[in-house]
Amino acid sequence: MAESIEMQHVALREAASRPAADSALSGTALDRPDTAELPHVVIVGAGFGGLAAARALRTAKAHVTVIDRRNYHLFQPLLYQVATAALSPAEIAAPIRSILRDQKNTEVMLGRVTGVDLERRAVQLDEGRRELRYDYLIVATGARHAYFGHDDWEHYAPGLKKIEDATAIRHRILVAFEKAEAEEDAAERERLLTFLLVGGGPTGVEMAGAIAELAKMAIARDFRNIDPRSARILLIEAGPRLLPTFPERLSEFARRALERLGVEVLTGKAVEHVDAEGVIAAGERIGSRTVIWGAGVAASAAAKWLNADKDRAGRVKVAADLSLPGHPEVFVVGDTALTLDAKGNPVPGIAPAAKQAGKYVGTLIAARLSGRPAPGPFRYRHAGNLATIGRRAAVADFGWLRMSGYLAWWLWGVVHIFFLIGFRHRMTVALEWLWAYLTFQRGARLITGDLKL
Amino acid sequence: MAESIEMQHVALREAASRPAADSALSGTALDRPDTAELPHVVIVGAGFGGLAAARALRTAKAHVTVIDRRNYHLFQPLLYQVATAALSPAEIAAPIRSILRDQKNTEVMLGRVTGVDLERRAVQLDEGRRELRYDYLIVATGARHAYFGHDDWEHYAPGLKKIEDATAIRHRILVAFEKAEAEEDAAERERLLTFLLVGGGPTGVEMAGAIAELAKMAIARDFRNIDPRSARILLIEAGPRLLPTFPERLSEFARRALERLGVEVLTGKAVEHVDAEGVIAAGERIGSRTVIWGAGVAASAAAKWLNADKDRAGRVKVAADLSLPGHPEVFVVGDTALTLDAKGNPVPGIAPAAKQAGKYVGTLIAARLSGRPAPGPFRYRHAGNLATIGRRAAVADFGWLRMSGYLAWWLWGVVHIFFLIGFRHRMTVALEWLWAYLTFQRGARLITGDLKL
Repeated sequence: MAESIEMQHVALREAASRPAADSALSGTALDRPDTAELPHVVIVGAGFGGLAAARALRTAKAHVTVIDRRNYHLFQPLLYQVATAALSPAEIAAPIRSILRDQKNTEVMLGRVTGVDLERRAVQLDEGRRELRYDYLIVATGARHAYFGHDDWEHYAPGLKKIEDATAIRHRILVAFEKAEAEEDAAERERLLTFLLVGGGPTGVEMAGAIAELAKMAIARDFRNIDPRSARILLIEAGPRLLPTFPERLSEFARRALERLGVEVLTGKAVEHVDAEGVIAAGERIGSRTVIWGAGVAASAAAKWLNADKDRAGRVKVAADLSLPGHPEVFVVGDTALTLDAKGNPVPGIAPAAKQAGKYVGTLIAARLSGRPAPGPFRYRHAGNLATIGRRAAVADFGWLRMSGYLAWWLWGVVHIFFLIGFRHRMTVALEWLWAYLTFQRGARLITGDLKL
Repeated sequence: MAESIEMQHVALREAASRPAADSALSGTALDRPDTAELPHVVIVGAGFGGLAAARALRTAKAHVTVIDRRNYHLFQPLLYQVATAALSPAEIAAPIRSILRDQKNTEVMLGRVTGVDLERRAVQLDEGRRELRYDYLIVATGARHAYFGHDDWEHYAPGLKKIEDATAIRHRILVAFEKAEAEEDAAERERLLTFLLVGGGPTGVEMAGAIAELAKMAIARDFRNIDPRSARILLIEAGPRLLPTFPERLSEFARRALERLGVEVLTGKAVEHVDAEGVIAAGERIGSRTVIWGAGVAASAAAKWLNADKDRAGRVKVAADLSLPGHPEVFVVGDTALTLDAKGNPVPGIAPAAKQAGKYVGTLIAARLSGRPAPGPFRYRHAGNLATIGRRAAVADFGWLRMSGYLAWWLWGVVHIFFLIGFRHRMTVALEWLWAYLTFQRGARLITGDLKL
């Protein structure tokens, strides 16, 4: 055994001492797959956009490297279910390596990109300690929540983009009930039992519905000194209505559905201040120990790396083929890019849009590499918008068809399970949901990590 | 809505201002269930022992309070499957509140016990900032791993008792493969691909088998620059054989089964030193970046709280009825106590033993409270020992029946699923296992938290 491992390592060492191909890792020379001499396509980010690009390149005459800070692809549309203890992180995440295992021209690298050298065509990792040369670069690094210049609010009002965000929010929500159970001061108990969602987009609407159901059903009978059903859940939106990207009729349906669940919906009230005690909205203080932010997103730091023009949300302004102006070998897709649809409106920051852009760019590069004519400019096809409001209610807008209520909810469930990567996840999520549906229980009610009471 | 919440809180405030019963919380006065005037039984720890005690008290004329630092009961025997990315934490944990929801005389308190005042009959929480008076006290706080006076080893060789231990070990194992993939130095790559389990008890045996399968099957084809199948997995035991509590024939079977999985088993070699580079065992340095400790356990701090006699492993020496000598109102159960069986041998630190002790003490207190004769001294009934070695192999020792191999493995699976609390967990764990069995995949391969590469 020990001998054979020695042999292995000798073989690896020999491989390592081979000269690295021009397009491959410089700094660290690695044993490359046999596509190593081919042009190198580097994809930064394994979200919906990055993975779609990688898949479109699976038969391309290229060596593809997918870099991500995480070892998993996250199915972000269901992240709010982790934050509300319905699903476990592993149920909405799949290892990038498993997803791309059988794509022989592709390798996966765990690493933190910190910059791009456009002149030398190199991606810098870990503050420049490593770098990776590219022939083509696809930047698909997504977005983070934005606090409109009030970054100090993040501490009090976390947003929901990463698994760690979701488990931190889950921790806050569950601990708030625990603290309320032990609290003797009535005013403090009220603050602990007030949950405040900032922003009436899909995240706010879905979180509000899920917290209402958690409090009013899943844990309703679990406490002795408080009644979780008395929890106050507020959804605050600065604009005139919820779900502004949906038709007005569906916004109104969403508001009524939330109110039936006991959520207080406050529209036309901008949040002006956030601190440990709650928020000030439209001049009025609302006390809450659990404020969750769903009011804005900003693109990742890619515009800075690329020294590119950006809009106010930090999205890179791209050409019609999603390339960086002046750099036909660099592309930006998904939430990181400001892409316009046929009418000149920005393409929404949703998973299907990122997938379409990733697939487009992957196909374009593959065509260029094999000398085939490149496709025309990117055209976004809007399939529709979906948002769910707790059990049995959702809104769906396909343009030609608008649905609300029970049927829309089933549709939402089927669509989301269908798009979850991998059969296993579909199966276990479907089972979790069936279980939750039948019993009103939550499967992931764990307060992990440091407990501060 | 706002009004009704106001009303709720007024009602709660009135309840709070009622004088607290003598046996109830002092310091914080709470709205008590209608059993509040009854004698107060406080159970510290909601592991197997504490929960069994609580259940045995469900019809007792008592008010029962279960205190735990965590909001969940953990099914520790499967923790190694979380550490090796097969199961998610929520699949082996259930909220204590849900488990005891329908037990009307019982409340659950999230809190950290820091001491006991035997004279005043009070449990101290959070360094004395809160306290809880009791008429009967059951201490069931379990054990932690022990480093035989080398507490500095813990940093390099974490043990496996808590969910955070398991996710931290999972993080280390998965990151080791990722680092090896990017490493160009052959010696360092070898250290990264060497996994070292210290201690040949069930934890070491089960972890070694699970890591071997992870490396040689689940992720075998996921890397491009390393071959995970070349990973070296060593199990080091100071004594002459693995699984010393099993018959010799089964120990020998376990060794052969592990060796078939590619694990190197080193017996008769004591680990003398642990650092960031690996270990020194029997004078020889073995390089490894992932050392996992399964060599010893020590009881929790309960002996100190109770100012009690203890053995070398910190276990409290208890009377024949599991009470603290001189304090017939205080009981210690499970891994925290040194309990002797009929032959005078220590009862093993396994879940069935803790359950039996908890049930015994709960029944004893219930009998005393209702004036029924108390049961005789505690008698441990050893049902058997089970340990699994990867897929398709396990050892089982029921005294009258000894099994090894495939059938024992199925028995192990059925027994563990049966004892998992709650139908939901049984169902999802069974499904995860079926999936893993059919596909060799791991469902929980997430590197979460701060990534340090």
